[in-house]
Amino acid sequence: MSSFYLRKFWGYNYLGFIIACILAFNFISNASAKRNEEVGMSSRFFSFVGGDSGSWRVTKSDTIIGEPLNNVKRLDIVAGARVQSGLDTGWVLQGITSNERYVVRDEKNQLLAKQQGLGRPEATRAALILIRKNAAWWALTQDERRKILEDQSKHIQIGLRYLPAIARRLHHCRDLSENEPFDFITWFDFSPAHEADFNHLVAELRSSEEWKYVDREIDIRLDRE
Amino acid sequence: MSSFYLRKFWGYNYLGFIIACILAFNFISNASAKRNEEVGMSSRFFSFVGGDSGSWRVTKSDTIIGEPLNNVKRLDIVAGARVQSGLDTGWVLQGITSNERYVVRDEKNQLLAKQQGLGRPEATRAALILIRKNAAWWALTQDERRKILEDQSKHIQIGLRYLPAIARRLHHCRDLSENEPFDFITWFDFSPAHEADFNHLVAELRSSEEWKYVDREIDIRLDRE
Repeated sequence: MSSFYLRKFWGYNYLGFIIACILAFNFISNASAKRNEEVGMSSRFFSFVGGDSGSWRVTKSDTIIGEPLNNVKRLDIVAGARVQSGLDTGWVLQGITSNERYVVRDEKNQLLAKQQGLGRPEATRAALILIRKNAAWWALTQDERRKILEDQSKHIQIGLRYLPAIARRLHHCRDLSENEPFDFITWFDFSPAHEADFNHLVAELRSSEEWKYVDREIDIRLDRE
Repeated sequence: MSSFYLRKFWGYNYLGFIIACILAFNFISNASAKRNEEVGMSSRFFSFVGGDSGSWRVTKSDTIIGEPLNNVKRLDIVAGARVQSGLDTGWVLQGITSNERYVVRDEKNQLLAKQQGLGRPEATRAALILIRKNAAWWALTQDERRKILEDQSKHIQIGLRYLPAIARRLHHCRDLSENEPFDFITWFDFSPAHEADFNHLVAELRSSEEWKYVDREIDIRLDRE
């Protein structure tokens, strides 16, 4: 009897093929989800998924310089790699936290003493700042980049002045692959009471020498819901 | 008649399914090969494929510290991403060239004046040095790492002394994903007459303060054939 049903099952040729396809697709999806879990278990890699879902609602999106990004309604932040969704209008940006490239020990100690982690209950407002720097920046040597970033632009000192109100996590994209649309993804969160401070912070940086090397920047503001 | 053949074709149920699988597999392979080509067109990403083929023959493979890597007969260097082969015994290591992290302008000028490119006709001998550094290294700040790398260990000055005989390309792996087995892949080529120089170079570096932070190192030597 089981042989009869089996034959009958395979007898529906197209149906059999479609079921086989579905099984194969499920297998691939599961393998991919498992891989995501494994990647997600370690903690340096993050995906920022812009679309119709996610716990952060986009309130504003400004293209400061360079090519714009599609507008989305919501943002989801996922630990690990996330494959581009089927959504035509959405996007997935990926970055990896890494060792610090510019801070010296004295600055690091100040940062460690003052900074607070992301996700404080009062930090219901956030900013996603997407940055790409031009070829001239990347052709500079370490000492030249440090001179512009800190000696001339006070990037680290400016950031320190807004601690602990503004929490921050920097993700590097440039060395993930050759096809990343940005070099850096920075995620900030803060209480609505500190939004004006955050606006000052980004205005100070945007007027600095370092920002002359920024050739693409998008500033997305969000509320947690 | 065509309808008869079509029915007959789908009538061989298992055969039809197998053919569909083969077609699907080919489609996926082609898409993947096309993607590799696209990635390969840009020039920072490289795959080192250890196995039974490739233009470099492995003559020696030493595990200096840490977990060994499977021995392979040959090495192929491919521009772009390459998916792990079906070979049980082989491996694919991936890295991306990037901006320099430690050299200052004066050192960069000396390097530019003295260094030669890979692939000179007489450079028929090569070394693939695979390095991972420990967590203590990555927790250091930029100034602390520079102090160890150059002030104490003379890494850049040692390298300069062996130019132009030894050509070199450094690939970063650490920020590609969280699952890379090494932090750095360095590919060197030189003429057989300079092999002893290369051995001195690696011996000098291995006895340096910086190398106390290396927790995995494999040294593979190769001949071009």
